[in-house]
Amino acid sequence: MTGDSHFWAVVPAGGAGTRLWPVSRASSPKFLHDLTGTGRSLLQATWDRLTPLTGSQVLVVTGAAHRAAVAAQLPDLPADQLLAEPAPRDSMAAIGWAAAVLEARDPSAVLGSFAADHVIADEDAFRACVTDAVAAAEQGYVVTIGIEPTGPATGFGYIELGEPLGEGPAHAVRQFVEKPDRSRAEAYLATGRFRWNAGMFVVRATVLLDLLAQWHPELAAGVRALAADPSRLEQVWPGLEKIAIDHAVAEPAAAEGRVAVVPGGFGWDDVGDFSSLGALLPDASGMPGVRVLGDASSVRVVDATGVVVPSGDRDGRVVAVVGLDDVVVVDTPDALLVVSRDRAQDVKAVVDLLKSEGRTDLL
Amino acid sequence: MTGDSHFWAVVPAGGAGTRLWPVSRASSPKFLHDLTGTGRSLLQATWDRLTPLTGSQVLVVTGAAHRAAVAAQLPDLPADQLLAEPAPRDSMAAIGWAAAVLEARDPSAVLGSFAADHVIADEDAFRACVTDAVAAAEQGYVVTIGIEPTGPATGFGYIELGEPLGEGPAHAVRQFVEKPDRSRAEAYLATGRFRWNAGMFVVRATVLLDLLAQWHPELAAGVRALAADPSRLEQVWPGLEKIAIDHAVAEPAAAEGRVAVVPGGFGWDDVGDFSSLGALLPDASGMPGVRVLGDASSVRVVDATGVVVPSGDRDGRVVAVVGLDDVVVVDTPDALLVVSRDRAQDVKAVVDLLKSEGRTDLL
Repeated sequence: MTGDSHFWAVVPAGGAGTRLWPVSRASSPKFLHDLTGTGRSLLQATWDRLTPLTGSQVLVVTGAAHRAAVAAQLPDLPADQLLAEPAPRDSMAAIGWAAAVLEARDPSAVLGSFAADHVIADEDAFRACVTDAVAAAEQGYVVTIGIEPTGPATGFGYIELGEPLGEGPAHAVRQFVEKPDRSRAEAYLATGRFRWNAGMFVVRATVLLDLLAQWHPELAAGVRALAADPSRLEQVWPGLEKIAIDHAVAEPAAAEGRVAVVPGGFGWDDVGDFSSLGALLPDASGMPGVRVLGDASSVRVVDATGVVVPSGDRDGRVVAVVGLDDVVVVDTPDALLVVSRDRAQDVKAVVDLLKSEGRTDLL
Repeated sequence: MTGDSHFWAVVPAGGAGTRLWPVSRASSPKFLHDLTGTGRSLLQATWDRLTPLTGSQVLVVTGAAHRAAVAAQLPDLPADQLLAEPAPRDSMAAIGWAAAVLEARDPSAVLGSFAADHVIADEDAFRACVTDAVAAAEQGYVVTIGIEPTGPATGFGYIELGEPLGEGPAHAVRQFVEKPDRSRAEAYLATGRFRWNAGMFVVRATVLLDLLAQWHPELAAGVRALAADPSRLEQVWPGLEKIAIDHAVAEPAAAEGRVAVVPGGFGWDDVGDFSSLGALLPDASGMPGVRVLGDASSVRVVDATGVVVPSGDRDGRVVAVVGLDDVVVVDTPDALLVVSRDRAQDVKAVVDLLKSEGRTDLL
């Protein structure tokens, strides 16, 4: 696969990660942080996961505000493969721009789009799955990867598998469905035909742009114009339609039988909140049920379980937790968060509150 | 009462307040802190409460390590009324020393001993009660104040009232009893004869020392020797018996019918842990069920109740609590504590843990 010079990874590095506040901030979002205790940020781990497949054929699309941080974290990324959006225009503009840049370089280019802030446990299985997806993409499909569900999650959209496509693992996509409620998610799992939608797409650049031109001709023309003349960025970008790739291309293409899904079971997680972050960490030494992101030697527990993120900004500062189960404690220099693990999603409410107060210093 | 030149307040300012860690530290114990949000430390509030009765006739007994802090907090306390213990020798040595100093000044001195780290809601009622106690003390009794229980508390000792002594509110003490379990505490309350023992004693200095001489002659001789020649402090102090005033005098004197109790109902609290600290504070503005000691503008809650003590060491640092009921969050520059309110007593376990690790920097 490394030899396939047509395959490029496209890494949209965006998203505020508000449910991971106060670690994730607008000025330093989730993908720039090491949230798994490995010493590598989620962005760096994404690079590490993809480059065995792509070599240096990686294109990163990020906000202008984060261009310098991304370049610093990825010193091997060539400067002309880092696209900086003047402002967020949702995923279709970001991936479409990257597709147009690749199409101009190589009309046979196949791109795989993988978010910069997800975690994957079994990287070999992931790469094998992407290789299958590339094969299907070369046949002209928009290929998505359908993650084997490990439970009736309500935080993700689902993909319903249709008939197998040929001999490989690819299936047709019968439909994409939005985040379900619990009982509907359980019903999906019971059928055995549903997979999680991790927002991964593998497709020939030209196929993607031609499909886009079918339903959103101005957006397709806009990103192709950008690729032809990068100096027009500031002029063209603000006029691009703001739409997600799912709605712009994947859903209408599925209705036309143009979308394939390759099932994958490689331990994917979007690290959506501190509860899922905790699930990715091992128990801290000598503290059963306690997961620490950072220096565990600064944590003391008495009859407590949960997730602790020490600040790490001052030597010897101690975090002590007593008599609480499944509590999340996140300490940063200018903000401290305490939340029950089952309410980890509601951290967003604090961010909304601070936003309404104009406390941009904390966002 | 202000005119009674024989009455002196003795304020033992000791105790580590380990259940209030990390606010209370060995180097800066509970009594030096403003734990009620009034702008006055518990020690200063004790001074404010007593001086309307005593004028400047207040003797403070504290550890040598805290002498400077006590003097700084009580600028109106004459230097020769601040006794500094070379090392802790329990309450009998501390109060006995003060009694001996007063006896030497005035053979008719009546002392009232009141801890430096308690809180009283109705100060007028408190002073009226002390005035009654002084009257009984002048008749030769060891007088204690029996707090009207507001519930079957298991954290305090109890005093059982006997027959009334004359026309006043004073009763004989039938017995002192140790901290009971819950069902015994409920049985005590049902009788109507039991009061909380707040460790307040009012007694003529000479009566106290003579009773002490009866059961602990060396201790009585030791503190009287100190009063006669303060230069012998370092020599005499280490040899003094380490015993609480309750065991040394109050209990044996009660058995001999020498102890009286004056009932009091003035809203007393020993601020023993963060749960009782929370109960002394009003709800923070706009945050029902949330008590904040410090700057409430730094606290944000979403579906949460409890007690928050912000650090106050850095401008704008925010404490956010989400989806937790009855949680206690205490932030200090070098230690952060999160505990469920019903486990507030167990904070001591963290202090014990740090002590066993030799982390004296945090104690």
